[in-house]
Amino acid sequence: MPSGKRGRFPKGTPVLDAARELGVYVESVCGGRATCGRCQIEVQEGHFAKHKIVSTLDHISPVGAKERRYVEKRGLAEGRRLSCSATIEGDLVVDVPQDTVINAQVVRKSPIERIIERNPAVQLCYVEVDEPDMHKPLGDLDRLKAMLEKDWGWEDLLVSQHIIPKVQSILRKGNWGVTAAIHQDMESSRPTIIALWPGLHNEAYGIACDIGSTTIAMHLVSLLSGRIAASSGISNPQIRFGEDLMSRVSYVMMNPDGREAMTKSVRAAINTLIEKVCAEGNVKPEDILDAVFVGNPIMHHLFLGIDPTELGQAPFALAVSGAVHSWGSELNLAINLGARVYVLPCIAGHVGADAAGAVLSEQPHHQDRMMLLVDVGTNAEIVLGNSHRVVAASSPTGPAFEGAEISSGQRAAPGAIERVRIDKETLEPRYKIIGSDLWSDEEGFAADAERLGITGICGSAIIEVVAEMYLAGIISEDGVVDGSMAARSPRIVPDGRTWSYQVSNGRQQITVTQTDVRAVQLAKAALYAGIKLLMEKIGIDEVDTIRFAGAFGSFIDPKYAMVLGLIPDCELSEVKAVGNAAGTGALMALLNSSYRREIETVVRRIEKIETALEPRFQTHFVDAMALPNKTDPFPRLSEKVELPPRKLLSAAGEGGGSGPRRRSREERAARRART
Amino acid sequence: MPSGKRGRFPKGTPVLDAARELGVYVESVCGGRATCGRCQIEVQEGHFAKHKIVSTLDHISPVGAKERRYVEKRGLAEGRRLSCSATIEGDLVVDVPQDTVINAQVVRKSPIERIIERNPAVQLCYVEVDEPDMHKPLGDLDRLKAMLEKDWGWEDLLVSQHIIPKVQSILRKGNWGVTAAIHQDMESSRPTIIALWPGLHNEAYGIACDIGSTTIAMHLVSLLSGRIAASSGISNPQIRFGEDLMSRVSYVMMNPDGREAMTKSVRAAINTLIEKVCAEGNVKPEDILDAVFVGNPIMHHLFLGIDPTELGQAPFALAVSGAVHSWGSELNLAINLGARVYVLPCIAGHVGADAAGAVLSEQPHHQDRMMLLVDVGTNAEIVLGNSHRVVAASSPTGPAFEGAEISSGQRAAPGAIERVRIDKETLEPRYKIIGSDLWSDEEGFAADAERLGITGICGSAIIEVVAEMYLAGIISEDGVVDGSMAARSPRIVPDGRTWSYQVSNGRQQITVTQTDVRAVQLAKAALYAGIKLLMEKIGIDEVDTIRFAGAFGSFIDPKYAMVLGLIPDCELSEVKAVGNAAGTGALMALLNSSYRREIETVVRRIEKIETALEPRFQTHFVDAMALPNKTDPFPRLSEKVELPPRKLLSAAGEGGGSGPRRRSREERAARRART
Repeated sequence: MPSGKRGRFPKGTPVLDAARELGVYVESVCGGRATCGRCQIEVQEGHFAKHKIVSTLDHISPVGAKERRYVEKRGLAEGRRLSCSATIEGDLVVDVPQDTVINAQVVRKSPIERIIERNPAVQLCYVEVDEPDMHKPLGDLDRLKAMLEKDWGWEDLLVSQHIIPKVQSILRKGNWGVTAAIHQDMESSRPTIIALWPGLHNEAYGIACDIGSTTIAMHLVSLLSGRIAASSGISNPQIRFGEDLMSRVSYVMMNPDGREAMTKSVRAAINTLIEKVCAEGNVKPEDILDAVFVGNPIMHHLFLGIDPTELGQAPFALAVSGAVHSWGSELNLAINLGARVYVLPCIAGHVGADAAGAVLSEQPHHQDRMMLLVDVGTNAEIVLGNSHRVVAASSPTGPAFEGAEISSGQRAAPGAIERVRIDKETLEPRYKIIGSDLWSDEEGFAADAERLGITGICGSAIIEVVAEMYLAGIISEDGVVDGSMAARSPRIVPDGRTWSYQVSNGRQQITVTQTDVRAVQLAKAALYAGIKLLMEKIGIDEVDTIRFAGAFGSFIDPKYAMVLGLIPDCELSEVKAVGNAAGTGALMALLNSSYRREIETVVRRIEKIETALEPRFQTHFVDAMALPNKTDPFPRLSEKVELPPRKLLSAAGEGGGSGPRRRSREERAARRART
Repeated sequence: MPSGKRGRFPKGTPVLDAARELGVYVESVCGGRATCGRCQIEVQEGHFAKHKIVSTLDHISPVGAKERRYVEKRGLAEGRRLSCSATIEGDLVVDVPQDTVINAQVVRKSPIERIIERNPAVQLCYVEVDEPDMHKPLGDLDRLKAMLEKDWGWEDLLVSQHIIPKVQSILRKGNWGVTAAIHQDMESSRPTIIALWPGLHNEAYGIACDIGSTTIAMHLVSLLSGRIAASSGISNPQIRFGEDLMSRVSYVMMNPDGREAMTKSVRAAINTLIEKVCAEGNVKPEDILDAVFVGNPIMHHLFLGIDPTELGQAPFALAVSGAVHSWGSELNLAINLGARVYVLPCIAGHVGADAAGAVLSEQPHHQDRMMLLVDVGTNAEIVLGNSHRVVAASSPTGPAFEGAEISSGQRAAPGAIERVRIDKETLEPRYKIIGSDLWSDEEGFAADAERLGITGICGSAIIEVVAEMYLAGIISEDGVVDGSMAARSPRIVPDGRTWSYQVSNGRQQITVTQTDVRAVQLAKAALYAGIKLLMEKIGIDEVDTIRFAGAFGSFIDPKYAMVLGLIPDCELSEVKAVGNAAGTGALMALLNSSYRREIETVVRRIEKIETALEPRFQTHFVDAMALPNKTDPFPRLSEKVELPPRKLLSAAGEGGGSGPRRRSREERAARRART
């Protein structure tokens, strides 16, 4: 357990051997010497009707001398046994704990809830090497290799260059007992000794990192137990070169050393984050032996030191789309000198390794049902598919969903409005601010507001307030703030030739302007048009399930996203936020190299749609400017939410009229969204 | 020709395809586009009785359009054809020239006389890559790989890290036509793109380097044609850390930064030498893509950045004995960033990669006859064997053979005595000095001597003068300068309690002292004792053929070496100097990677004898102190040279007597020689 694999073995078979024979991954560093403590298992006692066996502690061998020595020296939790020493003496249900903790480290709650079957690319192997012998003058390294072949079956080992000068002193320091870290990512590649320590070395870590345009997120995880030691994030310092990706590409184009400066900057930030997770997890950076990275194509290129200019113009050519195998030292990462790096493949010029990570995490390709996977950022990356077929595209949503280009927009921080409700009768708003649990109409809110301030509207609340304005009839189906409502509420205020809605009028005026509504419309129309293209490509009218990846998805209410028509109609219970799915995919690829092969295969299979090349994108975009959509019905949403009656208005400030001129403005917007 | 391989092919088969099918190596960079000119062949016309065919120019297709374009643009020597374009139309004897010269480079006379069949680890492959396509968003690198697989059959290509950031600009600069250098050293390793150029790149070079303690020697060779572009040498600057190897090991032991300083120093010298051979051969250092190194174990370790201290004390443990695969950039070599490095395996703690190179060059393991291969330096490396069995050892000859520790010894330079003859009647010497073609008793010598000076005795002449002294009866069988001869000649002069022989008494007194003779005896006894151990190990009394490798062997007269008993009795015509055999072996491994596999296999098979562990070494050493030897007869030598009658003397200054005290001195010497 938990794999459920079963088999028959002769009495006296070590549990570890049985596990290996069944293909169940149980770590062992010391090679059965009962010194590393990595191969812990537990026996489940009881009558297991399902398996038709009775499993009891009598069916496992008693603790022997070697195991007792380990227990006395290091201790072992109640019920735990070392599977290299305990032998099978009868029917057993054996549990392989997924949190094996050595040296009494603190166990933290894992931020990833799933259990990832482990098969890391790096393995620790302890060996006792023959001492030098004048009669058989094999070199130190050669005798080490011979023993790694004899004890662990590693043939034809390569050796990281940095180890060669150190072999002799490490062997002598360990009194000829050493632990080697062996990296083998795939069957066809030759295994390599990437690190070497004197004596038994019982710690091997990896990092899984998602390099976002705004935030870099990282998990630090034990490759031996799968335990997440720390998870953290840091701002991407490239922001000083440009908020959004395209302005960073421009920076590279305009500045001779721009690419190099950006590469240095992102790698430095990653090193800072490595320091941070290591401090948090109490792990030495030299114990990090493997690293997996995902990121959008531009971050991917800049991290690898590649000029991203080509990604800023058609045909949006990636310099490299396949998975990249590299070394930490090549990328100047402050981890073990021999550490390896794996970068997930990119799907297309606008659909990066981060989208590949999200696909790996959410596994649409293993589903019978049709899954829509959306990662909303400055660019929305959209994947749609099931086990038969997967298609992908990106849509230029712009920064509105991140709170930029919104008059009262701000980052999610204390004092920012994060929830909004508008009374359909009075048009009065209620809201919550980050840092307070109270709604603005509840007792005690005033004190909280006094303390925290009411400073702006954060990205996710933008969706909510515009949707609520629409549901309350403050804005029309085509997104115009209805000035005639000013008669009903002082919250509707004139703003030049257009109207705004006043959410809060405390120390700071917080209003939603006509321009704000337009920005949200443009962003959501781009996203929806991209989704529609993929649905058309596959030939479906509806999706079965929707996954929102990324921070944005975690905070928005699916209902409001659907009211605004960001996403197609779907059962609300089937719309789920999955957090940093890209990072989870990276973690999976870190802990199990077969996931690397899986995503490489899937990415080759994914059909890519370039929205800029699709003539129907513009039509879908124009239709999607309406709330929730000009042509598509939202029957499932209508069951849950009372949508307002149709109301078409034109905003005075925009020149009025819904004739040709209006049309042409939307077309311009569509064109803008596509470049 | 020259391989002699033959086969039948359908009419119309391109000659290049036929060659490949037969396993004959014919280079091609452009992949059959008739643009690189590397696949040149010549048709031999005539009636070939041996092959029972008539080969005529009518049997090869006429020059077609593509080939004509090449000829017009680049020119082609009379009789040459491009085998990618010329097809077989009848019986042909085809010559594959071993000197294919492109772009009218000067052909130099090759310092290596043998023809080395080529199969280099690096191959150039020109491809035309698909342009980027938004509908199939494969990355630039991925499309390059796809084309290298399609056109050249390379599957599963890896890529050198330094190329990744450059791929996009190189592809665009070459207008999607690029030349990739692919490195694959062995079947089991994955091929790797190590360099990339825009357009057709038609030059690929390699260096083969022997890192000697005194001199570093290098060949620069075209990997495409096998042509040696330059060969040169440079002094090993480590000499400032210590003349001999052991003093360099001491330097490392005594100085905290000693190892690093020595490594830097030898790598810098290699880079200087690379500049030198590149200037000489008119080759760009960036066109060097592969490098093969040999060296004694201490140079091997220092070059690779390994502390050699362990090699200075029992059990003389090598840090690494097997072949080392590395990168030029890892070793700070100033060659192409992606260039590979291969270092031949070491045989034992005192028998290095240089000895392995000499074995590869002289191939005792492919001989039926018993070959003795000796490389004399401060340490003599000795290999003995044939196709059944090969044994190896080293013997601590000390620096006497290099002219050090000899009172009048000096480097081989103008004015140094290089040849000596002593008249058996008058005991008068005749000699030649470097820089003059005359013997000292010939007319005109005085003028040469006036011009050049007579400055000392060079290493090789030391052997000759001591041997001539012995043949003239000036020294006894046990190496004592016979003071009683002073009565016969004023050349025998007292020197404290011993006697010296005066070779020249011009401006500089040049004498051979008793101490000089002793130094030569100690050195030659150590060498001979080592050889005897190996002969005993194999169970033979005589060897069939002897090879002297190294500079020393090139200058000594085999006869005198045998008179002194450096080497065992053998037909004099079977004693050959083979020059820098280690360097030749490196060159072979550079031009043909199957030689790498061959020497790796042979080295594993070679039985190593540690002279310090063999109790019989001392006995052999003491016997070998005598001239030519106390116990071994030299029947073949005696047929050619009249050896003097036995004469035993003891040198007064050494305490006299041949009793226990004398014995113990020789034993001390033997012990000294073994530590």
